[in-house]
Amino acid sequence: MGKQERTAVSPRRDEDYPEWYQQVVKVSDLAENSPVRGCMVIKPWGYALWENMKEILDAMFKATGVKNAYFPVFIPIRFLEKEAEHVEGFAKECAVVTHHRLESAEGGGLVPAGPLEEPLIVRPTSETIIGESFSKWVSSYRDLPLLINQWCNVVRWEMRTRIFMRTSEFLWQEGHTAHADSREAMQRTLQMLDVYETFVKEALALPVIKGEKTPSERFPGAVNTYCLEAMMQDRKALQAGTSHFLGQNFAKASGIMFQSAKERQEYAWTTSWGVSTRLIGAIIMAHSDDDGLVLPPVIASAHVVLLPIAKKAADRSRVMEVTRALARELGAVRYRHRRITVEIDDRDTGGRGWDWIKKGIPLRVEIGPRDIAQGAVMLGRRDRGPKDKESIGRDAFPKKIVSILDEIQQALFDRALRFRRAHTVSIDAKDAFYDFFTPRRIKRPEIHGGFSLSHWCGSAQCEAKVKEDLGVTIRCIALDAQDERGSCIVCGKPSARRVVFAKAY
Amino acid sequence: MGKQERTAVSPRRDEDYPEWYQQVVKVSDLAENSPVRGCMVIKPWGYALWENMKEILDAMFKATGVKNAYFPVFIPIRFLEKEAEHVEGFAKECAVVTHHRLESAEGGGLVPAGPLEEPLIVRPTSETIIGESFSKWVSSYRDLPLLINQWCNVVRWEMRTRIFMRTSEFLWQEGHTAHADSREAMQRTLQMLDVYETFVKEALALPVIKGEKTPSERFPGAVNTYCLEAMMQDRKALQAGTSHFLGQNFAKASGIMFQSAKERQEYAWTTSWGVSTRLIGAIIMAHSDDDGLVLPPVIASAHVVLLPIAKKAADRSRVMEVTRALARELGAVRYRHRRITVEIDDRDTGGRGWDWIKKGIPLRVEIGPRDIAQGAVMLGRRDRGPKDKESIGRDAFPKKIVSILDEIQQALFDRALRFRRAHTVSIDAKDAFYDFFTPRRIKRPEIHGGFSLSHWCGSAQCEAKVKEDLGVTIRCIALDAQDERGSCIVCGKPSARRVVFAKAY
Repeated sequence: MGKQERTAVSPRRDEDYPEWYQQVVKVSDLAENSPVRGCMVIKPWGYALWENMKEILDAMFKATGVKNAYFPVFIPIRFLEKEAEHVEGFAKECAVVTHHRLESAEGGGLVPAGPLEEPLIVRPTSETIIGESFSKWVSSYRDLPLLINQWCNVVRWEMRTRIFMRTSEFLWQEGHTAHADSREAMQRTLQMLDVYETFVKEALALPVIKGEKTPSERFPGAVNTYCLEAMMQDRKALQAGTSHFLGQNFAKASGIMFQSAKERQEYAWTTSWGVSTRLIGAIIMAHSDDDGLVLPPVIASAHVVLLPIAKKAADRSRVMEVTRALARELGAVRYRHRRITVEIDDRDTGGRGWDWIKKGIPLRVEIGPRDIAQGAVMLGRRDRGPKDKESIGRDAFPKKIVSILDEIQQALFDRALRFRRAHTVSIDAKDAFYDFFTPRRIKRPEIHGGFSLSHWCGSAQCEAKVKEDLGVTIRCIALDAQDERGSCIVCGKPSARRVVFAKAY
Repeated sequence: MGKQERTAVSPRRDEDYPEWYQQVVKVSDLAENSPVRGCMVIKPWGYALWENMKEILDAMFKATGVKNAYFPVFIPIRFLEKEAEHVEGFAKECAVVTHHRLESAEGGGLVPAGPLEEPLIVRPTSETIIGESFSKWVSSYRDLPLLINQWCNVVRWEMRTRIFMRTSEFLWQEGHTAHADSREAMQRTLQMLDVYETFVKEALALPVIKGEKTPSERFPGAVNTYCLEAMMQDRKALQAGTSHFLGQNFAKASGIMFQSAKERQEYAWTTSWGVSTRLIGAIIMAHSDDDGLVLPPVIASAHVVLLPIAKKAADRSRVMEVTRALARELGAVRYRHRRITVEIDDRDTGGRGWDWIKKGIPLRVEIGPRDIAQGAVMLGRRDRGPKDKESIGRDAFPKKIVSILDEIQQALFDRALRFRRAHTVSIDAKDAFYDFFTPRRIKRPEIHGGFSLSHWCGSAQCEAKVKEDLGVTIRCIALDAQDERGSCIVCGKPSARRVVFAKAY
């Protein structure tokens, strides 16, 4: 490798990936840590991403008949206790409200007062509180299916946090449905997984493997958990959407009963499914580079920045005139779910272009007197190198912008898919498997790791063994995995198909 | 008065207004109380209203340069303590998080564990936590103005709650801005009040008086508080939007400082402004009638319901075919910020029409074999009586629906304005003032009360006196109040203008 060019983000990915991630979050102005332990502040550039994601997903949910509602942020402890596995899963990490006012302490300052008879937890997820409502809303099979979603904040008290990836408070949507029979509930579970797959592939430009979790990785209280798994640039897996078939577990816990067409009292079958602001972490980790954030155009906070260049005062009014006219024209163009969003950066400081590269905007357009004279503008694309600019006709640009953005969107997806393919291997020997996941055991540690498609006998012991030895888990059993006889990578016992092993976030 | 017709809601408004309100919330399926004290469940029909309100307001905010962001739901107690009036205003009603996990108690059940070093409160409003961020984001006058909004949930622990009007948790938006000088901050305060006024008048069909609060009614910590006051059908006032000029109070509390163009270190000037799900309560109380909810078309959860009528099985497929075709055609029509939303109710139960009247949908359309034969449909409008239906051409209807909806929107606004005018009086004598606000002292108690435009000397004592005697407060000093010499309605001292007195929610 030749002399490394200086990059806008330091350290580079290959130097210190976790620190590179923190720096990308910072220089792109997406978010920052707050003074409240583990909670983040999502800044406007980051929140705009979330708004775009919400808007697209929300329309997709509604197209399947789902309606939005809103349930309390607080859950009485006794609700959580109703489902044994569920409480086991969340009791260790929930914020507990015990008082309802503050009063002045004798030595000054304020202390909690007004103790609650029953403490409340801040929702870590809402199966139990929504189940309570469902139990009142459902009395006959005619009331089913119930298809409800809520967009809200949730709190899971995390000890080790990382912005977007793992925070004590995060934003998400949680869908909750109830059905008259098992088959329909399972169909809905898989339907919503498909919605997520379409969204993640088409809007976030992320290739994913669609699969089922092993029992040890299921949502607490679920019968089956399905997921999407994406590969980040450090070759770790990140879960990019999850959909749970809850069977009758939560219906029994919450008393969601209905009179069937045959006039029998039956428990409903429920599902839940969600994605969170963690997906912003996935976008960063999958697409960004050593110059900062790279945003897929479909959900980008803005599509294009115009950079007027007028070194001489005399040029300024003409350059600004052309810039504003172009902004108006671009702003009238429709791209997917919204109009083209345009930023104009007319600061007279150096390094404007680099600021926008770091922020990941898909297109940068320089407009100077010479460009204007030629009826052209200089276009820089974020999927190409920072110095790789091309002249494009001023009038042609608004006509071409949609196809250019589509090209970038596709280029990001293709690059991520190539990357995943390059780092997905089928491994059948235990030694090779251990080498793959142990950098010091192979000659080129920079290319170790990724997804290993290997056989697994189905036992929790073998799963626990690789987790303990290597920090590797089964990410999922791919839904399209072929039947293939083989031997478990750990114990050698017979296996019917390969599963996806990886280190994960 | 003749024999009262039976109405869909019982009691009627004139029988028991507070109970009528609860019944409207219930029969319209907007929301319900939750098992968590004071918290509500917003059901899909109610949440759709909020979504429409959000969408319109959000676009209006953004058009003024405001950007959305998100800040933590938790606020450390020491932040609240920074502004003395602010803590005074909120300490008595906040949910306090003191622990971060649950553990099993000896006798079974779960108890709070993992005490926090410093308790956190669940945000009742976010001036202090957002101020902390602003203090980091601002260093030069070039960083100003900062124009930020967040959509979120907030918690104020209320002892007496009423759905939408006063709940322990509610949804709202809170705008927060910082400016380099006082004049610009004041302009922004009034600009956002104007945005609210336009929104409330045009989207919610609510006439409002725009005014300034007296010192005793200000937001805790504000220099000036501006508000919109609307009249409900029980002639009480309801605040429908509020905008605060915070001076440098919160900038000093949070350390929001910047270097001015003259290179001096100065404190910024800040504003905050918000509206909440309380506006849904305002819509109910202002427009609904004894048959249930009446929704302004601009923000209605849905615009029109199609009611296919096929008593003979032989008619069914033809009727459904026409119904679905009409639904498709209507769904393609644009009305204000969105497309026409259509519900089809093909249940074979009686009382379908009444269900939709109670839910407040602007238009009901019956489609039967006879209508089809005549190329017509039967149209019922929610601003008219339940039996007042008219035949309208099947093909003409999609062309006319926008103007019909506009007519209804205008009719609701006009009716509310007439009502307010009828119950707004200028009172100059203390006796008449006391009579006006005391039902038992006048002959026709059903028409007592409303807005009294009366003189006030400016003293907090006189304000406190009418509050104690009558439960009446000064809702605002109208911004367009004319200078007019008079005598204070309480003490008789000179006054320079009339203010708006009323009982209030």
